[in-house]
Amino acid sequence: MNKGLTTINGADYKVSFSEKGYQDLNDQLRNDYSYIFLLVDTNTQKHCLPYFLEKIKTLEGKSVITIKAGEVYKNLESCQEVWQELSDLGADRKSLLINLGGGVVTDLGGFVAASFKRGIDFVNIPTTLLSMVDASVGGKTGVDLGGLKNQIGTITNPKLVVVDAIFLQTLPKKEYRSGYAEMLKHGIIRHAEYFKKLSNFQYLEEKDIIHHIHHSISIKNGIVTADPFENNLRKILNFGHTLGHAIESYFLTNSKKKSLLHGEAIAIGMITEAYLGFRLVGLSIEAVEEIKAVFLNIFSRVHFTRQDINDIIALLKYDKKNSHGKVKFVLLKAIAQPVIDVEIKEENLIAAFNFYQAN
Amino acid sequence: MNKGLTTINGADYKVSFSEKGYQDLNDQLRNDYSYIFLLVDTNTQKHCLPYFLEKIKTLEGKSVITIKAGEVYKNLESCQEVWQELSDLGADRKSLLINLGGGVVTDLGGFVAASFKRGIDFVNIPTTLLSMVDASVGGKTGVDLGGLKNQIGTITNPKLVVVDAIFLQTLPKKEYRSGYAEMLKHGIIRHAEYFKKLSNFQYLEEKDIIHHIHHSISIKNGIVTADPFENNLRKILNFGHTLGHAIESYFLTNSKKKSLLHGEAIAIGMITEAYLGFRLVGLSIEAVEEIKAVFLNIFSRVHFTRQDINDIIALLKYDKKNSHGKVKFVLLKAIAQPVIDVEIKEENLIAAFNFYQAN
Repeated sequence: MNKGLTTINGADYKVSFSEKGYQDLNDQLRNDYSYIFLLVDTNTQKHCLPYFLEKIKTLEGKSVITIKAGEVYKNLESCQEVWQELSDLGADRKSLLINLGGGVVTDLGGFVAASFKRGIDFVNIPTTLLSMVDASVGGKTGVDLGGLKNQIGTITNPKLVVVDAIFLQTLPKKEYRSGYAEMLKHGIIRHAEYFKKLSNFQYLEEKDIIHHIHHSISIKNGIVTADPFENNLRKILNFGHTLGHAIESYFLTNSKKKSLLHGEAIAIGMITEAYLGFRLVGLSIEAVEEIKAVFLNIFSRVHFTRQDINDIIALLKYDKKNSHGKVKFVLLKAIAQPVIDVEIKEENLIAAFNFYQAN
Repeated sequence: MNKGLTTINGADYKVSFSEKGYQDLNDQLRNDYSYIFLLVDTNTQKHCLPYFLEKIKTLEGKSVITIKAGEVYKNLESCQEVWQELSDLGADRKSLLINLGGGVVTDLGGFVAASFKRGIDFVNIPTTLLSMVDASVGGKTGVDLGGLKNQIGTITNPKLVVVDAIFLQTLPKKEYRSGYAEMLKHGIIRHAEYFKKLSNFQYLEEKDIIHHIHHSISIKNGIVTADPFENNLRKILNFGHTLGHAIESYFLTNSKKKSLLHGEAIAIGMITEAYLGFRLVGLSIEAVEEIKAVFLNIFSRVHFTRQDINDIIALLKYDKKNSHGKVKFVLLKAIAQPVIDVEIKEENLIAAFNFYQAN
């Protein structure tokens, strides 16, 4: 029934859906690859790989490389293990790597492929809502460095992305919420009506969520094909991510804190950055309050001490969007009307956290 | 007096020489970089950096990152140290990395830059004869993995390459010989007269060697701009390198052996692969003997046991040119007439080593 979803064309590859996706993958496998490897993590090996191998029977018996599940393993040590394993298994330049998993597997696997023997082909099969709507298009590959998000990586496109919402059945609800936050972002930065439609959060069934996934990927694809190297337009995708990444890194590396999900961190980022938009570029307070209410309905409020906030602000200097020692933000002057490259003073950042914490 | 050497235009950057090179570097530095970093190794820090900073005074006081000198440090651990140092020093996406050194520094520094925050600009200042003639053009970046040569890397061009033969004064004679072997290769695969001219080995003065360097870079540039991703023509640059890399890796990782210089290893590779050309694609025995004589005049003969040869042959499977489990060689049917993608049987490989070892 989802066969009807149109394929989305990226710069030099496509994102295809459900049964059509598996047909396209079978076509891709008809290339003259010398070896095919599957990269999974301990979760997707258990919950997704059996179904996937059912769908693509020719992959039965191919070498499976498994990394540990979790953002803390999205690092160079894991890359080195995968590179070594590829090398030990005799992988050559005409090999194909199929990444089956969430954002850690597709980001890390993409980087591993992009730099193994100066680049081998890879295909992504995202299995989480977040990786479907966020990592499917745009070609960003990478790993964290000492807890700082995605510091090492390249921009390299996969040969194909296959999106099958059936994998979402295997997903914990908190992971669903994490991806949902990115989908809301797509509405907030680009399509007010879509934001409206999603703003009443619910756990949707596969047949309904797949249409939103398709819409989100279409929005993101339109942005990244217009500006692949993030010179201008693409920056709007960073809405909520400047503070969001710093918050995520802070919780990831602080042994006293429980890690936040990516979506949870960027939800806080979007609330605080919406507030900055109100203070600095004219976003209405009603819109800020609406954004805050939508996300606090999904994620319970996180408490920040003054020390937490100072440490998070200190981490901002590592943000990839920065240059010349200045931290640049994407703000909103209205829903779906982002403004890029806004510099922010520290006092405004503290005020934004206060706004987030206040009832 | 070397001002007259014409600038060589790569795909999207240039290789410029001597004083013109420093002028072009000054122009490059006029870009709006937020930070500039210099990457050196312990040798070039001592022997090349002071002169270089004299030439480009605006770089005085910029952060210098130093790696240990030597092929054994061309690995992911060194990359991780450099990435971490860049991150600690606040490097952002608008930073520039200047790699001042031999092939280890330019290959590793290129990879570090290509994958730091998904890619920052870099400039190469090769300081060895080998890196001038070999690493200056073609965009190959990379590091070794567990002793296997250049397994991890990308094809990413620098923004500029500056070649100044004055750095060769700081070079041990064995390093000069190593680079000279690559120059001979350029003649052997592409320009018989150039091979003839270089075949009587000597230590040339700066004012003479610089013209040969220019010629070698021109030859290599012509090849790599015609085929940047090594689909066909570019493969000819691998002449001598299939066995050469395996030999180099074997000596690098075997604790009982003294490491070979790259040029020394590929000299053996060229003699043995010339012999394979005689056995399989019609190279005259006179040409093979000539190639053997030229290289044995430069490098003393290395002894291989039968076990060494077996282990080297086993390493061939990791060669990046391989696919589908087959080891492919570049052979010669005549000087400057290479043939690509020739498969070789093990018995011929053993015969080739026997030819090398025989008087």
